[in-house]
Amino acid sequence: MANLENIKARKTLDQIQPYSPGKPIWEVQEELGLERVIKLASNENPLGPSKKAVEAIKQGVLGLNRYPDADASELKKAIATEHGVSPTQVIPTNGADELITLISEAFLEQGDEIVVPYPSFSEYDFGAHIMGAEVVKVPFTDDFAFDVDAMISAVTDKTKIIYICSPNNPTGTYMKKQDVQKLLDAVGDTLVVFDAAYSHYADAEDYTDGLEFVQAGYPLLTLKTFSKIYGIAGVRVGFGIAADSIIKSILKVKEPFNVNSLAQLAATAAVGDREHVTESHDANSRGREYLYNAFEELGLSYTESMANFVLVKLGDEGEALYHDLMKKGVIVRYGKGWGLPEYVRVSVGTEEENEFFVQALRELIQK
Amino acid sequence: MANLENIKARKTLDQIQPYSPGKPIWEVQEELGLERVIKLASNENPLGPSKKAVEAIKQGVLGLNRYPDADASELKKAIATEHGVSPTQVIPTNGADELITLISEAFLEQGDEIVVPYPSFSEYDFGAHIMGAEVVKVPFTDDFAFDVDAMISAVTDKTKIIYICSPNNPTGTYMKKQDVQKLLDAVGDTLVVFDAAYSHYADAEDYTDGLEFVQAGYPLLTLKTFSKIYGIAGVRVGFGIAADSIIKSILKVKEPFNVNSLAQLAATAAVGDREHVTESHDANSRGREYLYNAFEELGLSYTESMANFVLVKLGDEGEALYHDLMKKGVIVRYGKGWGLPEYVRVSVGTEEENEFFVQALRELIQK
Repeated sequence: MANLENIKARKTLDQIQPYSPGKPIWEVQEELGLERVIKLASNENPLGPSKKAVEAIKQGVLGLNRYPDADASELKKAIATEHGVSPTQVIPTNGADELITLISEAFLEQGDEIVVPYPSFSEYDFGAHIMGAEVVKVPFTDDFAFDVDAMISAVTDKTKIIYICSPNNPTGTYMKKQDVQKLLDAVGDTLVVFDAAYSHYADAEDYTDGLEFVQAGYPLLTLKTFSKIYGIAGVRVGFGIAADSIIKSILKVKEPFNVNSLAQLAATAAVGDREHVTESHDANSRGREYLYNAFEELGLSYTESMANFVLVKLGDEGEALYHDLMKKGVIVRYGKGWGLPEYVRVSVGTEEENEFFVQALRELIQK
Repeated sequence: MANLENIKARKTLDQIQPYSPGKPIWEVQEELGLERVIKLASNENPLGPSKKAVEAIKQGVLGLNRYPDADASELKKAIATEHGVSPTQVIPTNGADELITLISEAFLEQGDEIVVPYPSFSEYDFGAHIMGAEVVKVPFTDDFAFDVDAMISAVTDKTKIIYICSPNNPTGTYMKKQDVQKLLDAVGDTLVVFDAAYSHYADAEDYTDGLEFVQAGYPLLTLKTFSKIYGIAGVRVGFGIAADSIIKSILKVKEPFNVNSLAQLAATAAVGDREHVTESHDANSRGREYLYNAFEELGLSYTESMANFVLVKLGDEGEALYHDLMKKGVIVRYGKGWGLPEYVRVSVGTEEENEFFVQALRELIQK
């Protein structure tokens, strides 16, 4: 009889850190016996999904015995039109997570390197580890600004991909347009993956979502998602925009039916739902301001954010406060996993959720 | 300025054959100016999705701004209960396609080998090529029976995975239980991936879906799908059942939110929809018989099928007949891609669709 212990996963996968999505609301309710629990830990749209997306799903549900359109043609067209590019420059995926894995599979060999700002979204590392590539981490400056010169210096002959997450998760900071230009000009023929998942919330004048550099012919891929401002994280749609040749390379490793039918319908409808986007943007801006004011009032330092979350410094009590907040029914994301044990990241919620969070925090700090 | 041509996909990906999902109905309608077009090319459930699944989706659509449950706990529980295993032995994925890729990422290094029957489902090769592994193809016997001895002989020190697709796509034939046992006993510590996507349609007494071998402690993973008898190909859910340790290895390379929320709800509901399963099974059995009779009447040889499709030999005229069928509004799958240029594979449709197909074929053959 065979020995199951001899069926072993690849050694290189030992490097992968399991992703921790945080506790779901029902679990915290059960464990702590709480009635009201709010989750401000996953940077979701608190206003809910685009109504147009919901309607599109309801219409499409009866044809589910059929496989999805392998090309996602309608969705590609909708995204292309919205962004002023050709459908051949677009690849929709099962969330942006999948796109990062596909990019890794398309371009990374064992021993290659990726350059990532640190701390940032952990999926970049995940994709590299699957392919046996090395992760070169470039820390932010003390105030969480991108250290562009350090990023440029980190690039070697082995570098195949440079990741820029802007606005960056979890800091909320962004890379200024002129710095993106500087980096692109310095690194030559290296693929830059520009993760603009939170771009809709960014309103600084010198912010770029990278698209203009795609259009100018740079080897840059802009990555976006329907999980944030469009509010359909549940159905999983992300996408990339880049030069035809780059998209073609990624398509090689795409499974035929990666984006499900309802996701295609929902995202196609959501692209055109400007009212929902504007409303979500404005509610987020108000929510950020409210949180800033509350943090100032409580004497807490925070990082100004271009996204739908705020990184706030709780100090030595960080871990205790994180747990105490949970006991009061507020789930936020604790910073330890990013090497930031004094910080938590809080998603901007609805007005009511923000107030509930601030009230809980106030009670804990002023007790 | 960078040169886009220097951003190159990995050399090993040149081996990947692009997947061809076949033309969609609307395209054939438009191109050929046809009103009625039926598609019997993707082995879908012609009766439609499980009604319970549809209802579950409608109920779940408002919470779509939230990320899916990363663990798919409810779905795992439902699958585990149905199959008499523990939830820790189950991994749900974004269709079975994704599971095959994840298995490849978990276990295959450059230079490793997989053993596959030929012709079979092309995704096994796809997964191997992504990881730079070699594909060792073992042909079926002349009447499309599994050549178990040849499969055993093909196993070397480099073999990391043996794939068995049973019932096999595109032949419809299956590997007898005693042959599975023989193979498992001969190959020792090698992972066997047993693709039982079509198991619900198989009614031979000596058929196995592999599950009993999982339970007996063999290093075998049974792969199943919600895209066939459950009729929800559009939302993408497949799953694997194996020993805890094998599932754990695969979980390492799983993206956190691979199975979307609506898919989780739909599949959880579909597992319990026995009425839909029975109805679909019986309609398929009747449809297969109807096709067998028609082929006999037309003097065509076919392979008896344990699945929801039939491989039929059209002879030298195969390619012409495939195209002529399309002109009459019937899309089937042409066999050339599997090295079977004299064959087409036709999915069992509704009674009406089967009649429409047979009528078209009759007119072409007897003209």
